[in-house]
Amino acid sequence: MSKDSVQIFDTTLRDGEQVPGCKLDTEQKLVIAERLNELGVDIIEAGFPISSPGDFRSVDEISKLVKDVVVCGLTRAVKKDIDVAAEALKNAERPRIHTGIGTSESHIKFKFNSNKEAIIEKAVAAVSHAKTYVEDVEFFAEDAGRTDNEFLARVCEAVIEAGATVLNIPDTTGYCLPEEYGAKIKYLKENVTGIHKATLSCHCHNDLGLATANSIAGVVNGARQIECTINGIGERAGNTSLEEVVMILRQHPSLGLDTRINSKLLFDTSKMVSQKMGMIVQPNKAIVGANAFAHSSGIHQDGVIKHRETYEIIDPEDVGVNESSIILTARSGRAALAYRAKIVGYELTKIQLDTVYQEFLKFADTKKEVMDEDIHQIIDTSNIDIESLA
Amino acid sequence: MSKDSVQIFDTTLRDGEQVPGCKLDTEQKLVIAERLNELGVDIIEAGFPISSPGDFRSVDEISKLVKDVVVCGLTRAVKKDIDVAAEALKNAERPRIHTGIGTSESHIKFKFNSNKEAIIEKAVAAVSHAKTYVEDVEFFAEDAGRTDNEFLARVCEAVIEAGATVLNIPDTTGYCLPEEYGAKIKYLKENVTGIHKATLSCHCHNDLGLATANSIAGVVNGARQIECTINGIGERAGNTSLEEVVMILRQHPSLGLDTRINSKLLFDTSKMVSQKMGMIVQPNKAIVGANAFAHSSGIHQDGVIKHRETYEIIDPEDVGVNESSIILTARSGRAALAYRAKIVGYELTKIQLDTVYQEFLKFADTKKEVMDEDIHQIIDTSNIDIESLA
Repeated sequence: MSKDSVQIFDTTLRDGEQVPGCKLDTEQKLVIAERLNELGVDIIEAGFPISSPGDFRSVDEISKLVKDVVVCGLTRAVKKDIDVAAEALKNAERPRIHTGIGTSESHIKFKFNSNKEAIIEKAVAAVSHAKTYVEDVEFFAEDAGRTDNEFLARVCEAVIEAGATVLNIPDTTGYCLPEEYGAKIKYLKENVTGIHKATLSCHCHNDLGLATANSIAGVVNGARQIECTINGIGERAGNTSLEEVVMILRQHPSLGLDTRINSKLLFDTSKMVSQKMGMIVQPNKAIVGANAFAHSSGIHQDGVIKHRETYEIIDPEDVGVNESSIILTARSGRAALAYRAKIVGYELTKIQLDTVYQEFLKFADTKKEVMDEDIHQIIDTSNIDIESLA
Repeated sequence: MSKDSVQIFDTTLRDGEQVPGCKLDTEQKLVIAERLNELGVDIIEAGFPISSPGDFRSVDEISKLVKDVVVCGLTRAVKKDIDVAAEALKNAERPRIHTGIGTSESHIKFKFNSNKEAIIEKAVAAVSHAKTYVEDVEFFAEDAGRTDNEFLARVCEAVIEAGATVLNIPDTTGYCLPEEYGAKIKYLKENVTGIHKATLSCHCHNDLGLATANSIAGVVNGARQIECTINGIGERAGNTSLEEVVMILRQHPSLGLDTRINSKLLFDTSKMVSQKMGMIVQPNKAIVGANAFAHSSGIHQDGVIKHRETYEIIDPEDVGVNESSIILTARSGRAALAYRAKIVGYELTKIQLDTVYQEFLKFADTKKEVMDEDIHQIIDTSNIDIESLA
């Protein structure tokens, strides 16, 4: 079955960077942009040009440097924002302007002190103005997650008519449940006149831990672009994790969807972004956490040693991790001990293993992790008749 | 509408602790167990008694200490495991034995080198044996996520008949999509004879970043227990995050489901577990990350200052965080600057703000975060006629 392509819109350098204490300078952004290009993302959102001189420069420099992908700049639905973004993007081979406005009742009332008709007018004016500079214009309906579907559909129709090529449906506050977000995309796919002229895009936030699930629900229901960041970084609880959505599509071929991402670069890219931003990745982070492929309980270690797929669904090499690390702790079983003992040179018989395992448990109860050098000591204390062959 | 109750089965001290380098000693486990009790969890899985002397002691001591909740010990479907768990639980007021066996083809074939009939026999024997010690017996069908539904239903029927009170349906490898996991629970709810005698439980792993979404899909489709850990810690990419599922049910009252958790203790409990285990929580972790309620982009800060709910769905106080921190960076807008300037004593006019904001941007482009003391310097450099009132 040939798979439908899902575009990866990476916003690590824009929404991802909107993080307290994580400012990147332009040089760092250029290095990351080159890596994102190698990784195979389709669109790089390089910044919000009007927001600061540094952001302007980054969008400008990335436009000059990275030629294989679409380079995108963010704007509000404000003429001056769009003028400045167009200026920053002027050297891009494939420029995209990303403009938009809040469409939920809360945003219309409290943020803009406006009304629905005026919002549609502003949206159309912004897209039309952006079209005077570039062919590729993405429109975001901010807080679409909490926007009534019928009004959202009207906004979408109006901006498609004004020339929008991509419709970004953000769950700005991270409020939606997957079913709800999926149903919203489906509603737009079925009810917006002219929807075939534009690509629907998922932009989900992780405030309730559902950004990944919501994005997948989006593409299953007809969206064909996911906006995401490396390590899921971003404002508050962050954005959708690029590595998670990419690997879900790859692990679930029955969905019939795939991306262009070279997954073997995921782990290394995660480390690079984490280091440059000073944003720690927790060890239990899916796909790219330090422990993502580490097994320390006895039951699991036993299974993995017998047959990797009993506990691992992803081959660590597919995401650029060299091997599943079998780590010895007080929760490790005999199989793991025997496996690691063999690596350091001891072929234990079953009876020897029983004896050594008792020593191992006493030792492990006093230590967080048992290292290779400790194994020699444990075997020595066990008083069995064996010598290391290593 | 009165809500259906979802039991929170906390396995921070068992599955959560199965983490390389994160061994807790018994004293630390007791402190955490007391806090889990205060937090309002329904079941504490205290350890895997046969796995090590330290684990035995922890289950024994927690059984003596914590009297308001069910205390649970894990076993394999092995007689000796169950005997040892019963011994460790003998002082518990409400003991539960949690026993089980792998039911997927991969586990039956590669882990046990066995067949379906023999697996059902072992499962029934384990539950029957556990019933000789305690009334409350939970059965886990390991790798249920990849087990064929029809066979899984047969296993469930057999163990219910043997007296199992809870059926744990683990997605051991973190492979399922939410729709798939929800459909599995629905299938069991509709096809297992005697299912009304037992509670279905969700135990999801986060290898693809879907543990939370899968658990919610489970309870929406009829499960009434969620197995989870503080901060989502656990083997590999970890378990379902307690804080996420609890807050999803609370933020989505239309689901008609709720837990007994006192959410105001969530943030503090997260910090406690992170410190005691030495397991870092990434800043962009949902609900409990350091940035979960921090706004640093101009657009968002402007919205939050006008009306908190434009960008925040959860009141930070509800999870024990004192206030949304408005952090000033190069991406902050005028509103945030004016807000923070006001806190340090300057009421800026619109024209003054324009001038100060230009200085602020130059300053902010050289610094990760602009602190209160920097504001004085920025205003000073701006050469406007104003003095701090603070």
